[in-house]
Amino acid sequence: MSFEVTILGSSSAAPVYNRHPSSQVLNIREKLFLIDCGEGTQIQMMRYKIRHNRIRHIFISHLHGDHYLGLMGLLSTMNLQGRTTELHLYAQAELMDLIETQLRLSNTVLRYNLIFHPTKYYLNEVIMEDDDVTVRTVILNHRIPCTGFVFKEKPKPRKLLISKIQRENIPFEFYNRLKAGEDYKDHSGKIIKNEDLTKPSAEPLSYAYCSDTIFDESIIPSISGVDMLYHESTFMHEHRERAKATYHSTSIQAATIATKANVKKLIIGHFSARYRNLEPMLTEARDMFENTELAIEGSRFTVDEHQLAE
Amino acid sequence: MSFEVTILGSSSAAPVYNRHPSSQVLNIREKLFLIDCGEGTQIQMMRYKIRHNRIRHIFISHLHGDHYLGLMGLLSTMNLQGRTTELHLYAQAELMDLIETQLRLSNTVLRYNLIFHPTKYYLNEVIMEDDDVTVRTVILNHRIPCTGFVFKEKPKPRKLLISKIQRENIPFEFYNRLKAGEDYKDHSGKIIKNEDLTKPSAEPLSYAYCSDTIFDESIIPSISGVDMLYHESTFMHEHRERAKATYHSTSIQAATIATKANVKKLIIGHFSARYRNLEPMLTEARDMFENTELAIEGSRFTVDEHQLAE
Repeated sequence: MSFEVTILGSSSAAPVYNRHPSSQVLNIREKLFLIDCGEGTQIQMMRYKIRHNRIRHIFISHLHGDHYLGLMGLLSTMNLQGRTTELHLYAQAELMDLIETQLRLSNTVLRYNLIFHPTKYYLNEVIMEDDDVTVRTVILNHRIPCTGFVFKEKPKPRKLLISKIQRENIPFEFYNRLKAGEDYKDHSGKIIKNEDLTKPSAEPLSYAYCSDTIFDESIIPSISGVDMLYHESTFMHEHRERAKATYHSTSIQAATIATKANVKKLIIGHFSARYRNLEPMLTEARDMFENTELAIEGSRFTVDEHQLAE
Repeated sequence: MSFEVTILGSSSAAPVYNRHPSSQVLNIREKLFLIDCGEGTQIQMMRYKIRHNRIRHIFISHLHGDHYLGLMGLLSTMNLQGRTTELHLYAQAELMDLIETQLRLSNTVLRYNLIFHPTKYYLNEVIMEDDDVTVRTVILNHRIPCTGFVFKEKPKPRKLLISKIQRENIPFEFYNRLKAGEDYKDHSGKIIKNEDLTKPSAEPLSYAYCSDTIFDESIIPSISGVDMLYHESTFMHEHRERAKATYHSTSIQAATIATKANVKKLIIGHFSARYRNLEPMLTEARDMFENTELAIEGSRFTVDEHQLAE
C-alpha cells in the first residue's frame, strides 16, 4: 500500500533558481492530501502529473504567502474543470474570509462543496479522521500562528494465513473477523487462537510536516517516532542567528529534532534564496542525522521497503 | 526609443499546455508597465528576464483570479528583495482591501511605498501621466467591472538639424527651446523659423489593452488608431454563443474591432483551454485583419520599424 510524499515546491519566501514555494502531496493508500499551496502549485501539479480531482483534503500551515497564495487559483481551476466532489480545507479561520471575499469579487459560486475546518493555533488536536488516516495538528513556533500536521495510518487488518485457515475449514464469512483479531470457535466448541490463523500486518506509518518554525524542542513529543519527518531548514547553521531572528531553523537544528524525536527519515526544505547549491546543507544535516534528504521539486519519498505493507 | 510589449501569459482562466494566465510588460522609453498579474507572473518575469525593480506602475484590469492572483506574491518578493522605490497600483478599490488584509495576516509591513489608484468602472479617465506617457482607462463590458488601458506616448521633441543650427551660430542653451518648437531670433532681430532648424520626430505611439470583454463596439472611439491593440480572443468564432454567454470575444470579433478602430497591429490572447493548437484561431483573425499576431508567452511585439523614433 502506498505511503509517499511528492515535493511540488520547497523554496522559502521568494521563488528563485526555478524553485517554487511550499507545497507537497502526500499519498496514503491512494488517498491524496495536499499540504500547503504556494503560488504556482496548480502548475507544478500539472508538471508532476498530480490530478487535482483526486485531492479531497488540503492543509495550510499558516498565512504567509509562500504557503497559500496558490490556493485561490487551484480552487478556481477545480471549479472551472467541473469538480463536484466535496473538498475539505484545514487552515486558520481567516483564510476562509479571504476565499469568500475573492469569490464574491469575482462573482463566482463554487459548484462543489468546500468544507472549511478552522485550525487552532494554541492546541494540538485531531482535525481529520477516516478509516485509513488520522491527522493531528502540531503547534509550531513561528512569527505568526502556524501549525504542522502529523498523518498517522490507522492499524492495518491482520494478514490471513490462508493454508492454515483452509486446513481448519473456516468459512469465508469469518475472514474479516479474523483480520480484526478474533479467535475462531468451531461447531464442536474448539477455539483456535487468532495468532495461529493470521500474522500481524506492517506497522502503521506516519508522516510529520513541520514548516515554518524556529528550533523548538517542544514539538518532539508530537512527532516522536514518525517514519518520515519534513522539517524546514531555511538556513545553513552558520546563519543560525538569522534563523532565530526570522523564526526559522537551520539544517543542524532540523537534524537535531529528527535525532531527538527518533524519526526514521528526515526531509529538509524551505530553502532560503541565498543558497543556490544545496549540497552543503545536505552534508551538514547528514553529519548529524544520516538518513536525510533534500526536498527537491519532483522528488518522491517513501519509507524503507520492508516497512511497506504488501 | 523603445515601444515594446512582452507577453508573460495569455491563457484564459485555468493554466493549460504550459500557458500561464494574463500578464504582460509594456516598455515605453525604457519605462516598464506591468499589465495584469495572473498567478505565476513573478516566475514568468524571471524566465523572460524582466527585472521587477524596474517596474513602477502596475495596472489590473479586473478581479477575476486569472488577472491578479500573482500580484500578492510579486509585491511580497519585491519587499523581500529590498525594494524601496515607490510602486503605483491601478485597480478597482476592492483590491487594496484584499492586499491590506493579506499583509496584516502575514504580519508584513512593506518597506516601499505602495500607492494605490482606484479605477472607476463607469468612466473612462486619465489615471496616470508623466513626461513620457498618458494612460487612460477604457470601460470594458465583462461579467464583473473591468477596465482596459490605453497608453499614449507624449509627443516627442522635434529633432535638431545640427548643420543648419551651427551655420546660424545658435547658442547651445537655446537647443531645448528649438526642440520644443520655438522660432529663433538673433541679436539683429532676424527671425529664423523653427521648421528651418528642426524636423518633426516620429509620431507618438499608442497601445491599447482590452481584456476581458464581450464584443462591444462602444470601445472603438477610445482605441481608435492605436499602433497596437491587444484584444482578448478567448474563443474561435464557431463558439461565439459561448463567448457571448461568458462575456468574452472571438477571433473574428477581435479582428472586427481592430478593423473598425483602424489600428495598425492586433495581438490576440486570453485563449480558452479548449484550444491546444492556436493556428486556426490566428488564421481566422487574419482573414479579416491581416496584421494579427498570437500572444504567445515570451513573444515581444513592437510597431513597424519606420514608426520607431531614432
